[in-house]
Amino acid sequence: MKPIFKPYYAVIFTSTQNENTNGYLEMAEKMEALAKKQNGFLGIDSARNTVGITVSYWQTLEAIKNWKQQSEHLQAQQKGREEWYSWYNVKICKVEREYQFFKK
Amino acid sequence: MKPIFKPYYAVIFTSTQNENTNGYLEMAEKMEALAKKQNGFLGIDSARNTVGITVSYWQTLEAIKNWKQQSEHLQAQQKGREEWYSWYNVKICKVEREYQFFKK
Repeated sequence: MKPIFKPYYAVIFTSTQNENTNGYLEMAEKMEALAKKQNGFLGIDSARNTVGITVSYWQTLEAIKNWKQQSEHLQAQQKGREEWYSWYNVKICKVEREYQFFKK
Repeated sequence: MKPIFKPYYAVIFTSTQNENTNGYLEMAEKMEALAKKQNGFLGIDSARNTVGITVSYWQTLEAIKNWKQQSEHLQAQQKGREEWYSWYNVKICKVEREYQFFKK
């Protein structure tokens, strides 16, 4: 029997950074640790070359809103705009379907 | 006046690769060029460190289905499972909201 798929939410964060990224990595690690403690957090995927992509997964839109407004995260967002990012884009998405492949 | 947001779709493809990735980059470039010619294609973002993340954007679910079943893409998917990927995950998402930041 195919399990019933329960929709959840993804936040796709794409960005490009300035040359000076002093303090960015420490902050990114701190924010990831903090996000993991939030209610409704499900997971996170991250990679960066020219463009950085971070996708975080959440149970509900409310969990996303709470994380966006978390006080330390608000400070990190401000610092990101002032110092690290030349551009970013945030997409709030509903995950409607999912499948996987594992090498045997 | 705030523009009306028209929902669209995102395919979040996350993967880890085997050690031998001979021919992968050429194929990835070829598939990206081909995807750009598909009806309903809107854009693509890609980055890879330990995990690779490729997010492609599409106007409709039908456009995603057509791309999944495109004949050269089907061959590439098979080669990916046989040779390049140790694992991958595909999420089909509806983009419900979006915002951006540009450094002044």
